[in-house]
Amino acid sequence: MAQKTALIVYAHQSAGSFNAAVRDVAMQELVEQGYKVIVSDLYAMKFKANATQDDIIGDLKNPELFQYGEETMHAWLEDRLSDDIKAEQHKVKEAELIIFQFPLYWFSVPAIMKGWMDRVLTQGFAFSLQKMYNNGVFKDKKAMLSFTTGATQTMFQPDGINGDINITLWPLQNGTLHFCGFQVLAPQIFWSPVHSTPAVRTAMLDGWRARLKGLLAERPLTFAPCELFDLSFQGKFLLRPKVKEEQESQPYGLTTGHHLGKPLPPDNQVSAQASGGRK
Amino acid sequence: MAQKTALIVYAHQSAGSFNAAVRDVAMQELVEQGYKVIVSDLYAMKFKANATQDDIIGDLKNPELFQYGEETMHAWLEDRLSDDIKAEQHKVKEAELIIFQFPLYWFSVPAIMKGWMDRVLTQGFAFSLQKMYNNGVFKDKKAMLSFTTGATQTMFQPDGINGDINITLWPLQNGTLHFCGFQVLAPQIFWSPVHSTPAVRTAMLDGWRARLKGLLAERPLTFAPCELFDLSFQGKFLLRPKVKEEQESQPYGLTTGHHLGKPLPPDNQVSAQASGGRK
Repeated sequence: MAQKTALIVYAHQSAGSFNAAVRDVAMQELVEQGYKVIVSDLYAMKFKANATQDDIIGDLKNPELFQYGEETMHAWLEDRLSDDIKAEQHKVKEAELIIFQFPLYWFSVPAIMKGWMDRVLTQGFAFSLQKMYNNGVFKDKKAMLSFTTGATQTMFQPDGINGDINITLWPLQNGTLHFCGFQVLAPQIFWSPVHSTPAVRTAMLDGWRARLKGLLAERPLTFAPCELFDLSFQGKFLLRPKVKEEQESQPYGLTTGHHLGKPLPPDNQVSAQASGGRK
Repeated sequence: MAQKTALIVYAHQSAGSFNAAVRDVAMQELVEQGYKVIVSDLYAMKFKANATQDDIIGDLKNPELFQYGEETMHAWLEDRLSDDIKAEQHKVKEAELIIFQFPLYWFSVPAIMKGWMDRVLTQGFAFSLQKMYNNGVFKDKKAMLSFTTGATQTMFQPDGINGDINITLWPLQNGTLHFCGFQVLAPQIFWSPVHSTPAVRTAMLDGWRARLKGLLAERPLTFAPCELFDLSFQGKFLLRPKVKEEQESQPYGLTTGHHLGKPLPPDNQVSAQASGGRK
């Protein structure tokens, strides 16, 4: 049997950081499980974040009106993406599991990691209008966010000063990872390690190590499958009337984003549901 | 009276783009209203997105463990941030209004604009633990997102394939702009200009020009004021019990993020409320 591969996309500037320690625990634990582990250390690689014409080798299709999405789609089809993008795409293709390891910057990933998403997950390679969400290109792969915060956990509760962390995670987990088809594992959130004692930080790492032992057997987060929607311009990409009707008697919306004017399903973006989906 | 200043932070690669046309309309209209308009054309400036040690001039406080937030806070205090950051901070200080103009990439800003946020909005300059949200540093300034999408409007409804746009906007509007104190004006969303006819695109620009005439008189979006929370470690940065109790009889949560287990207040992140806040 071929060796399984995991990719860690890592964005911290310092080898002495807690993020580095978290990455190292993942590497050790996954190697122990027989994985080949590849790390893309974005700052060490001086990874280019900006989406520019330099990402395309050779002539542009439309030099007067440069449209990044269009041009990179054509370039991918014709094997004319820049070498750094191709190298990352090769890693993604090889990996069964991708872990994004980063400190939360402005309720999201640092720019260098957003650049990885903008430039590596190009149309054709990572998605198409036919292949998205649960029918997406990477539907047989798993991905997850693992991140540190400055804020405490209560600050990101629905009644905390920053509001519900489930809302904050939606654009990344639904809009990016699941959009490309990934089964998204529950995020690993390290709440405010910088304000924690060394003993608490050690306990956080121990908890992460313990979780990693069963990580690949975890049920992924629940999203709304494409089949519930009429994915046509006539159907306006809306929930099918029959599904909408069925949902009327439910106490909660389908997902954080598909709330349908009801209370959000609790912790839809931070923990997998025991039932594994819509009942 | 001193001339008023507006800053447009602009992120598109092509002068022939619809985003460029939208920016030009804003420039013309604001100049007509007597504004001095500054444009930060991020791609043209080859704006550095990555948060690195090069952003700090001189010695680091802790070279063994480089913490970007800490180091840039000290560097700001001691006037040791890199020249490109200082130049942008100067523009922010001068501006009464900031418009972020961009195409939506992965449910968020392009990496180059995320880099502007990560690097320019440093602790001390843009926020502190004492100065955030409605008490934030920039509470007398206005800011807004103006962006184009590939998706249609219905795709971003609560019953559309991508889920509610209000959720997608939360990390940017609450977590970044309002966190720094900005009064956030309703976003200007250009739905799928690439799939629209020239006549529709022209109508979009006309609508934008018309909105700009009254832009500065608009009521900003509603967020949850700090005073509703106990902003102490003992109070856990949670909603005050009395406020929580008061909210129990309300049909909706306070904001998109502070939903309190209730249905979200409709369009909290896309349109200003007539009542201008909590009743």
